[in-house]
Amino acid sequence: MSGDIEARLAEMDIVLPKPVAPIANYVPVVITGTLAVVSGQIPVIDGKVAYTGQVGIGVSIEEATKAARQCMINVLAQLRAACDGDLDRVRRVVRLGGFIAAPSSFTQHAVVMNGASDLAVAVFGENGRHARSTIGVPSLPADAAVEVEAMVELAW
Amino acid sequence: MSGDIEARLAEMDIVLPKPVAPIANYVPVVITGTLAVVSGQIPVIDGKVAYTGQVGIGVSIEEATKAARQCMINVLAQLRAACDGDLDRVRRVVRLGGFIAAPSSFTQHAVVMNGASDLAVAVFGENGRHARSTIGVPSLPADAAVEVEAMVELAW
Amino acid sequence: MSGDIEARLAEMDIVLPKPVAPIANYVPVVITGTLAVVSGQIPVIDGKVAYTGQVGIGVSIEEATKAARQCMINVLAQLRAACDGDLDRVRRVVRLGGFIAAPSSFTQHAVVMNGASDLAVAVFGENGRHARSTIGVPSLPADAAVEVEAMVELAW
Repeated sequence: MSGDIEARLAEMDIVLPKPVAPIANYVPVVITGTLAVVSGQIPVIDGKVAYTGQVGIGVSIEEATKAARQCMINVLAQLRAACDGDLDRVRRVVRLGGFIAAPSSFTQHAVVMNGASDLAVAVFGENGRHARSTIGVPSLPADAAVEVEAMVELAW
Repeated sequence: MSGDIEARLAEMDIVLPKPVAPIANYVPVVITGTLAVVSGQIPVIDGKVAYTGQVGIGVSIEEATKAARQCMINVLAQLRAACDGDLDRVRRVVRLGGFIAAPSSFTQHAVVMNGASDLAVAVFGENGRHARSTIGVPSLPADAAVEVEAMVELAW
Repeated sequence: MSGDIEARLAEMDIVLPKPVAPIANYVPVVITGTLAVVSGQIPVIDGKVAYTGQVGIGVSIEEATKAARQCMINVLAQLRAACDGDLDRVRRVVRLGGFIAAPSSFTQHAVVMNGASDLAVAVFGENGRHARSTIGVPSLPADAAVEVEAMVELAW
């Protein structure tokens, strides 16, 4: 666990958790060619979904932003495991998909999703700048408030 | 229509239907490089959407799981047509996206989506193990209860 | 700004706008290998979201179809900028993702999304024929009625 990205995570006081096991019959990451596709991650901390419910009702925008950041931390943990511990293999964060559980009146999806995007850029710098689609949803698996999926380009 | 995957489908008593025609101006599958991108499939059987409405209201979890399985059967039918009848060209199921029509109180998305994922693994074995994102949605085209999209790696 | 696609746009009286700046910390397009991934675009015209609210409530199907077309115009504007002004580099529209803000009773997602798909085919011809997934959502960033994302194959 050394390398430029590990050093950056340490500077930011981020300790990546043990990757979260999928809650059903799928795998966290599939690598095809130079692309790593990361399954949708929910804001699990220590085995428990830390942010549940709809943003704007039971969950504040500030909490939801932290939830999105936690989803991205879990994406990084999955990627590290898929790269045999070497996050320096990530050449570019290509795309993040953000799903925000919220009522029809909600409009601040972009602010919430920045919790994930800001972390990607803080960790990977220019290589962390990504395309992104963010949408509202009525509900997510395990009542999670936010879910984030990723597509990443790897170096060989 | 021979080959290892066809034999496996026959063992499982699965007869792939004639691929469902898109309901609007798009195509079922686009191949780019080694990737096949399959349009979102709804649970059409014999030209009719077999499972409609929201899961947890008009549709039970058990029915929705069958709906997800039917979506995956329709994905396989589209893939077979795109591979000129040879599903043995599928080297890896890279990603499934699952959309479950459900109210905001619903939490069992992962169980429902296993209807698709379990079939992928049963048919392709280790090569069927995929990344996955599953979300709730208020509504889907043609009032479908479930929609499944796929990205697959093909051998040359 | 010359070329076959520019000529086609001119014939259709379509003037691509200045690309819309992302509303948060991400970039409009990332190119990885031969693929360009375009961030979700909302129906911004002259810096303002032109179609807001849910389709079937405040927004008619006809308006929503125009909204989807506008999203696709914004996708094209982003692609042109990413291709240094040369849309002839687009070899194939691989996939469009369509998100339609609508209540649970809505069923006409496919009609609405044709606003984007029809434009893709009108502009690129056979190369514009794409895979597609369309879903309903309760809400979108900035109260947009429609959001469209794209994946495109580029020629070298």
